[in-house]
Amino acid sequence: MQVFTRVQEMQEWSLQQKRLGKKIGLVPTMGYLHDGHLSLVRRAKAECDVVIVSIFVNPLQFGVGEDYEEYPRDLTRDAALLEKEGVEATFAPSVKEMYPQGYSTTVEVGGEITAKLCGKSRPGHFKGVTTVVSKLFNICLPEVAYFGQKDAQQAMIIEKMVRELNFPLRIVRGPIVRESDGLAMSSRNVYLNEEERKSALVLSQALGLARELIENGETSVGKVKEAMINLINSKPFTDIDYVEIYNGEDLSDLAEIKGKVLVALAVRVGKTRLIDNLLLEV
Amino acid sequence: MQVFTRVQEMQEWSLQQKRLGKKIGLVPTMGYLHDGHLSLVRRAKAECDVVIVSIFVNPLQFGVGEDYEEYPRDLTRDAALLEKEGVEATFAPSVKEMYPQGYSTTVEVGGEITAKLCGKSRPGHFKGVTTVVSKLFNICLPEVAYFGQKDAQQAMIIEKMVRELNFPLRIVRGPIVRESDGLAMSSRNVYLNEEERKSALVLSQALGLARELIENGETSVGKVKEAMINLINSKPFTDIDYVEIYNGEDLSDLAEIKGKVLVALAVRVGKTRLIDNLLLEV
Repeated sequence: MQVFTRVQEMQEWSLQQKRLGKKIGLVPTMGYLHDGHLSLVRRAKAECDVVIVSIFVNPLQFGVGEDYEEYPRDLTRDAALLEKEGVEATFAPSVKEMYPQGYSTTVEVGGEITAKLCGKSRPGHFKGVTTVVSKLFNICLPEVAYFGQKDAQQAMIIEKMVRELNFPLRIVRGPIVRESDGLAMSSRNVYLNEEERKSALVLSQALGLARELIENGETSVGKVKEAMINLINSKPFTDIDYVEIYNGEDLSDLAEIKGKVLVALAVRVGKTRLIDNLLLEV
Repeated sequence: MQVFTRVQEMQEWSLQQKRLGKKIGLVPTMGYLHDGHLSLVRRAKAECDVVIVSIFVNPLQFGVGEDYEEYPRDLTRDAALLEKEGVEATFAPSVKEMYPQGYSTTVEVGGEITAKLCGKSRPGHFKGVTTVVSKLFNICLPEVAYFGQKDAQQAMIIEKMVRELNFPLRIVRGPIVRESDGLAMSSRNVYLNEEERKSALVLSQALGLARELIENGETSVGKVKEAMINLINSKPFTDIDYVEIYNGEDLSDLAEIKGKVLVALAVRVGKTRLIDNLLLEV
């Protein structure tokens, strides 16, 4: 496996692969890889001729007071995992390489889709995401790019950006991968102490409750949200950021639970902000 | 020559050319072609395997009260001119095709380079330009894209965007093409009546005066600007939007005239806003 740290070298490699007629798959990550990432990597390996995994903790998508500095990093371990998966190239640039002195170009998706959920809690976050992902697309030139459904809103926004800026590629969303007890895998789970780790289970439990209520015929957004909120508040160390139910295509408001529906939540457990979601066809 | 009006068909054609190993040159225009555009087309024809000319009057780069509606259009004439030049493909999409219902993605270059000159007079203009040009790059997949030096600030901004978003292509700037009496060619020159056409000469004359003063050793930004302003104000129907002298690399302010210098001006002649500029190495 080749590890590139320079934009130009990564791009030249990608252009060379294109000239050879290879179909490039890209899995953009912030590293500290877990089985959620690796499930995307395996799918990319199965569907593409060559796979690039990018590892870059993108400062542009972190707000003031967020965990940019603390975000876990371990390139040696990540590279070993990717090597084992048969990945052809890892792209791990420095911040200075991605955003040189005087950098000032951004890509932004406007409207409801970025204003709600994490967009509301983390102003500027998605602008940072769409900017870095645009750069990664131009550097790595994938035919297919893989994103996890754990970040459902991110995936929706990137799909909209790809459609609207006409990037010549396709987005594939991989399903949420969970620990055996239900906690959605996240690089941030390492922040949790033992007690918090127990409380963190409530995110997937609240989604399970929502699914049960909806499958039993509940159509009221308010009632499902209320049941979820009550369950979450019953656990120690939890502090709800949001619990929402929106249209699963564009995050528009729902009069009732019907059609493609996204149940999404963000909960602070101790100091750790965790997200999870459930996409349903009702 | 093929004329495409659909994004998907244009992009598929471009992808096919890439698969055939062809080097694509793109000349983005708003149509109503003149010799300025055609000089770019000829250069593209000489340097690339296949040439795409896009013709799209981009509503996103026009402000309220500007001439979006009146902007001259003549696709039949343009297509005939491009056919004659041996252009392989013209891309002439509708507004709805480029910006479908709900469109909300933009690309923006921030900082001094977009805040000055036309960026100051036309808020949002360059955001419209960088957005549409990003789309055209993704649709037409050029290895080289050609822009005119007449829009010097636009070329600088697009070069910065290409560098910062890592588009896998190169920008070529073509020199300003002038009428025999010195007026820079522009699709907007058709707006001028006979009297205004005479006054419009003062733009290139003011640049000629600036060149003369600077070549004779004048290093004061203020003095050169003053001489230009006095000359322009001596002509009827003129109303100065700006006369500026900045660093020709990044539009930063100059303590004195030295190095790469851009002398740029925008003048309303009657109701027609005209621009012109001079790039000097002092």
